Amino acid sequence: MEELDFEPGPAFARQLDAEDELASSREAFVIADPDLIYVDGNSLGRLPRRTVERMRTAVEVEWGRDLIRGWNAGWYQAPARVGEKIAQLVGAGPGQVVVSDSTSVNLFKLTMTALAKRPGRARIVSDVLNFPSDLYILQGCTRLLGDRYHLHLVPSGDGITVDQQTLFDAIDEQTALVTLSHVTFKSGFLYDAAAVTEQAHEVGALVLWDLSHSVGAVPVELDRWGVDLAVGCTYKYLNGGPGAPAFLYVRRDLQEEALSPIWGWFGQRSPFDFDLEYEPTEGVGRFLVGTPPILSLLAMESALDLLLEAGLERIRRKSVRLTSYLVYLVDTVLAPLGFALGSPRDPARRGSHVSIQHPEGYRINRALIEEMGVLPDFREPDNIRLGLVPLYTSFAEVWEAVDRIRRVVEEERYLRYPTERLLVT
Amino acid sequence: MEELDFEPGPAFARQLDAEDELASSREAFVIADPDLIYVDGNSLGRLPRRTVERMRTAVEVEWGRDLIRGWNAGWYQAPARVGEKIAQLVGAGPGQVVVSDSTSVNLFKLTMTALAKRPGRARIVSDVLNFPSDLYILQGCTRLLGDRYHLHLVPSGDGITVDQQTLFDAIDEQTALVTLSHVTFKSGFLYDAAAVTEQAHEVGALVLWDLSHSVGAVPVELDRWGVDLAVGCTYKYLNGGPGAPAFLYVRRDLQEEALSPIWGWFGQRSPFDFDLEYEPTEGVGRFLVGTPPILSLLAMESALDLLLEAGLERIRRKSVRLTSYLVYLVDTVLAPLGFALGSPRDPARRGSHVSIQHPEGYRINRALIEEMGVLPDFREPDNIRLGLVPLYTSFAEVWEAVDRIRRVVEEERYLRYPTERLLVT
Repeated sequence: MEELDFEPGPAFARQLDAEDELASSREAFVIADPDLIYVDGNSLGRLPRRTVERMRTAVEVEWGRDLIRGWNAGWYQAPARVGEKIAQLVGAGPGQVVVSDSTSVNLFKLTMTALAKRPGRARIVSDVLNFPSDLYILQGCTRLLGDRYHLHLVPSGDGITVDQQTLFDAIDEQTALVTLSHVTFKSGFLYDAAAVTEQAHEVGALVLWDLSHSVGAVPVELDRWGVDLAVGCTYKYLNGGPGAPAFLYVRRDLQEEALSPIWGWFGQRSPFDFDLEYEPTEGVGRFLVGTPPILSLLAMESALDLLLEAGLERIRRKSVRLTSYLVYLVDTVLAPLGFALGSPRDPARRGSHVSIQHPEGYRINRALIEEMGVLPDFREPDNIRLGLVPLYTSFAEVWEAVDRIRRVVEEERYLRYPTERLLVT
Repeated sequence: MEELDFEPGPAFARQLDAEDELASSREAFVIADPDLIYVDGNSLGRLPRRTVERMRTAVEVEWGRDLIRGWNAGWYQAPARVGEKIAQLVGAGPGQVVVSDSTSVNLFKLTMTALAKRPGRARIVSDVLNFPSDLYILQGCTRLLGDRYHLHLVPSGDGITVDQQTLFDAIDEQTALVTLSHVTFKSGFLYDAAAVTEQAHEVGALVLWDLSHSVGAVPVELDRWGVDLAVGCTYKYLNGGPGAPAFLYVRRDLQEEALSPIWGWFGQRSPFDFDLEYEPTEGVGRFLVGTPPILSLLAMESALDLLLEAGLERIRRKSVRLTSYLVYLVDTVLAPLGFALGSPRDPARRGSHVSIQHPEGYRINRALIEEMGVLPDFREPDNIRLGLVPLYTSFAEVWEAVDRIRRVVEEERYLRYPTERLLVT
């Protein structure tokens, strides 16, 4: 990883922008308010310009004019076709990725599948930093299976990272499945997925990665790492739109023997034969269930080329620069104001978002949104999460965001806000 | 039900249109090609005009400009809010319907829930006319539960209807769940849902109705009928757009003890507390799982008011007239050409689509689409399915559709087409 030296002040930020090989990709996005600093693209990616036109066509031409013919003209193939595009972002060869349902539903399907493939093993390993919905799904699976499974959550010493050896010690011969977020949702901790996968395989366990916070921001090499199963979300760094359908990956040589717990007609061999008996289609398509939400799916599809054109190598390089620059500013500007870094210091172990912690985090976050034109998000109890998206976040924005955070604290603007939480934080 | 007398010829069709109290509601839809006769609204409803503008706002303003703030401004509440609108179409009081996932995934959740609530009972009753994806879901559930369940499919004597007494005889003290399509997908057979529900309750079984082919076309009174559970699709008579998310209903007094098999953060009591332990929210919301596809959901929401404004009583009255008129034309115009009626003759037992059967059905259907400007759909092995949608199908269109079908056969136009099936029929 390259050596990075930063300097204070906005001029230096502008210099970093001038050297940014991805600077022009920002033009591909709708920037309705240039003064608004959007540092929440890790939660909901910005709207690509091309998606505006794509959605008009999808609604007014494909649905409005072509009507039911849209299914033969491309809708029916969309889950597989879009899956193959995502496959290129996660290092997966053809025939292993499809778009389907939500991340949580996909996690349910693949968890149940994995447990069925490791009968006699009673242990599931995850960690306390995992996204709660992932843990809920695992808890639901163990309950559904009559509580014969034990869900072991590896602790985090610092609340930011998980010690690799502690994790390795938790993966034993009784372990059926290791399932973790590749990048954790709050601290942005980035696992060494290759090493974890290898360790799990050592004892015969399967591995299921949730790529929601890494896909499109961090290089992912599912095939090369020998990963068994993966799921991920498309509305963050993939810019697919609010609640865009999720994806799942099943390693090719696991597919033939694997059955989804949810058998639906989109996973049937010949759905339009309307046979009364389910026969799973060949390959990963058997993990599809019902009719997919086409408008949301097509919106998401139109965004993927932006990432493929930019390339994960350049994206990761800029991501590391952006987050490292932010860490530098946290140390030099915000630490004296009572902020602590809530993310790993080592860029090799960090995704593309950075959390900063402050006892008044919630109210500071409200002030940033309500009066400072900065949109981060807040994660309990004291985390302000700043997502830096290589395709459209500029270094000047990082500087400006930190400067506005500084003003909120120095000018005590946060004191005007209640501590009661809004519905969605 | 009113007495209906029909006469031959297009002038009579125009007279029926002149008397149609819902004639003006057609103007609420995009009719890109007035010469195209769309009789497949039972598969994919037409695009409402208001949805065009709604989607532009959703994409360009709510996502593009408001970004993550959209969640607090209405997206987060959408599954419950839109569920309450659908509730008004299915006779459900507040707090019992939410929008979630696909119909098949919802059927999975509610089937698993129902079976858990009737431990010790090993029988599931459905029928051979049910939509295959529903049967696949049930087969998947029985396999998942270790094959301790027996799925009994009630036969159909004529391939069009199910004899009610035969069904009642199949529902015994061992039956945990009776689950059927309220209107069957191919023949349009309409169950007496109140009577079936009552019979199932007599022996302590639960009832789960799939309303996909009835909601928005046939009056549904879930509360009054004492129905336990229901699911349904929104892209047919609800005009929600391709693959629009589905809905589910759980009777209020079943909710507290009921748990979804899939535990996700949208069903958690306080998702933004990010607790590590799942605690289901109160009420039907616990059957939500992951982040919903907002663009598809909002498109669907915008269409519902059209149905609420028209009212189910008027919709049903016109539906019965439309399908009865079509049956009259099948008898008088198409029967002499080798067509048989593939739907119930009694309008009280018929939904809003009518199937006609012909040995050359597939090729006739292709000719209708390719050169005659008629869009029905085909269902194996010989069914041409004509969906008549009260909000926008005119009697003149019904006449014209039948006349074009007549020409395809009389002029032997179907002979030009192969019998090989297209991907989606």
